[in-house]
Amino acid sequence: MVSTLVVNPGSSSRKFALYVDGRVVLEMRYEETDTGFEMCSMSSGTNQVCESVTKKDFEASFARVAEEVRSYLAHQFGSQPLGQIAVRVVAPGTFFQKHRVIDNKYIETLQKREKSAPLHIPILLREIKAIHQHFPGLRIIGASDSAFHANMPKQAREYSLPRILTEEYDIYRFGYHGLSVSSIVRRIHSVVGFMPSRMVVCHVGSGTSVTAVKDGVSVETTMGFAPSTGVVMSTRGGDVDNAALLEVMKIKNLSPADVETLLNTTAGLQGLAGDSDIRILLNRRSKGDIVATQALETFSYHIQKAIASQTVALGGLDVLVLTATASVRSADLRTLIVRGLSHLGVKIGDERNQLMVGKEGVISVRNSPVKVVVMRTDEMGEMATAVTIVDQEIYKNSK
Amino acid sequence: MVSTLVVNPGSSSRKFALYVDGRVVLEMRYEETDTGFEMCSMSSGTNQVCESVTKKDFEASFARVAEEVRSYLAHQFGSQPLGQIAVRVVAPGTFFQKHRVIDNKYIETLQKREKSAPLHIPILLREIKAIHQHFPGLRIIGASDSAFHANMPKQAREYSLPRILTEEYDIYRFGYHGLSVSSIVRRIHSVVGFMPSRMVVCHVGSGTSVTAVKDGVSVETTMGFAPSTGVVMSTRGGDVDNAALLEVMKIKNLSPADVETLLNTTAGLQGLAGDSDIRILLNRRSKGDIVATQALETFSYHIQKAIASQTVALGGLDVLVLTATASVRSADLRTLIVRGLSHLGVKIGDERNQLMVGKEGVISVRNSPVKVVVMRTDEMGEMATAVTIVDQEIYKNSK
Repeated sequence: MVSTLVVNPGSSSRKFALYVDGRVVLEMRYEETDTGFEMCSMSSGTNQVCESVTKKDFEASFARVAEEVRSYLAHQFGSQPLGQIAVRVVAPGTFFQKHRVIDNKYIETLQKREKSAPLHIPILLREIKAIHQHFPGLRIIGASDSAFHANMPKQAREYSLPRILTEEYDIYRFGYHGLSVSSIVRRIHSVVGFMPSRMVVCHVGSGTSVTAVKDGVSVETTMGFAPSTGVVMSTRGGDVDNAALLEVMKIKNLSPADVETLLNTTAGLQGLAGDSDIRILLNRRSKGDIVATQALETFSYHIQKAIASQTVALGGLDVLVLTATASVRSADLRTLIVRGLSHLGVKIGDERNQLMVGKEGVISVRNSPVKVVVMRTDEMGEMATAVTIVDQEIYKNSK
Repeated sequence: MVSTLVVNPGSSSRKFALYVDGRVVLEMRYEETDTGFEMCSMSSGTNQVCESVTKKDFEASFARVAEEVRSYLAHQFGSQPLGQIAVRVVAPGTFFQKHRVIDNKYIETLQKREKSAPLHIPILLREIKAIHQHFPGLRIIGASDSAFHANMPKQAREYSLPRILTEEYDIYRFGYHGLSVSSIVRRIHSVVGFMPSRMVVCHVGSGTSVTAVKDGVSVETTMGFAPSTGVVMSTRGGDVDNAALLEVMKIKNLSPADVETLLNTTAGLQGLAGDSDIRILLNRRSKGDIVATQALETFSYHIQKAIASQTVALGGLDVLVLTATASVRSADLRTLIVRGLSHLGVKIGDERNQLMVGKEGVISVRNSPVKVVVMRTDEMGEMATAVTIVDQEIYKNSK
């Protein structure tokens, strides 16, 4: 029996799932809500149970998860201990573009880049510390969120900065949301009935990205060095050009760290319209709010431009996948995103789109040159798979 | 008789042209060459004459131009003095998105934004000073290089930064190369035989930009707050994302001004391949140089992505114009740029393309859905026209 606990420490949520022999048997999800914090759990065959928790509970979530996992394994499998833990890693660096065992060297490398991904690395380091505390000596696998983009062509990976700088300091477009896109590649055949050659995957959650996938491989993506870049997001600015950024730094006398906080937490939809939640903005828009309407316009326009620009790396477009929470939940958002892409052959059916809420399936019309698909992302399942990839590598290297 | 001296102080050249009643009668061009500096002049009906000059001559070029202009007008028109001067203005700010008379307020506003366009504003201020010296009291018109983009839709003009910042400090995507694109719009009908509804103009010189023109109006452009942004250029980095930029600042402990210099003078093709001149890079590439080949690949890939992304603002593409020195001069460069756009309907004829060197005309094949046109830019002519626009406005406001 192989057991893996998957740990996904997000910027505003913590997700945990216990996999036994490839199947999820226990899930726990901590999330920030409008009124505070909430924890939902589900074990195989039972319904989801939710309860409100304190901020302290949210921050100490791993302690409770460890207890639940131990108790589950004891009840179901007697004295079997947990096999390993896989944790999602969002960190800039060529070193991190690979699923790896998290050892001391890994942690040191992570600490060095802590300030480059302030929404992600500090939380990750705390989570690793908690794991060490509760499961001392247990193997931890870092499931890389950028491994999927490791082989992007040079013209997509490199910056037009002096080569001496980029090579010495490892400054490249690493890309993120790789676990999500990879989970789509793994399942796309089962949803559309074929493996598309030219596919764009648009992940819309609190982070948003657009990735071009050619024959199953990433060839371009919107996020670059850090996950704050690319298209406009909930609170992240995306690609604000550097002249504008430097102007802000000069006027307000901000340090790189200050402006990084600004770009990560108060920019994007939050900066444009004062709300970071797409649901709230769609609601404001439906009531005729001009600011919210314009912010959603800007948001979807940036996604559309990214999709169109990625057809260059693909040589065209066969399938467009809309994935992650916001895409799956809102037909209105999907309409906003695909509108303005009809010249690329993207044609969705209004009725099909409206019917597809919280479900997976095709929303393009029958004769649309580009198939448009709504799919759930499965980052957790992909992280469980990452363990197998690391094992295979260790086995290969030992021979 | 209406006489206008047009002054175009570039980052590595100074161009001057005297217009009398709408026709160029005298041209003088100072340029930095491989070996030093050169001045070429031509008066109507005569051949171009070139001579090498010193750096001091280059910097004091306006003194000589003033002398030549005075002498020309005296010989041809007796005692007629020069009517006015139009100078090209490349400066960030809503104020500068309009052709205007340059008065004290204009100069003060320019000084405030001096550091935001370090390749352009200091030279411009020096040129204005020289004009005041040699033609005291003469009317000077600032021909705005961003006026053409003044009415871009909000989603193309605004940054996803906190609104309180962008509104207070006037931080928007102003766009540049507006005089060039505007001169293409003015002449496109005469070259292709119709006025295209959906056109992209790709200006490739030492600065490079891509602009979407819908029914004659700019709806999107690659340069944002300052002319260092957008696609990769000769020495300018273009859109290096802000996370990568902040990483460089932190590692090398650079101030905004330091990194601005880096992004303006040692990035782009220079940073990628150690040469900023596209001719030299094409030559290195023809000899199998891998670094030069990859740099040109990255350069053209960024242009292609920009062209594809701008089809969103246009709803498709009818005409693609390649303009400015590098576009007009090199068939190889044009091949590099349009390659990878065939899925958008861009198909050029190899023979047509090879034959079009230093000339204007169509290079796409007869059945290409998108007409591809090579055209010279006419920034100088456009600047002479700007004077008329200012006059009309003054007349309108006086009524």
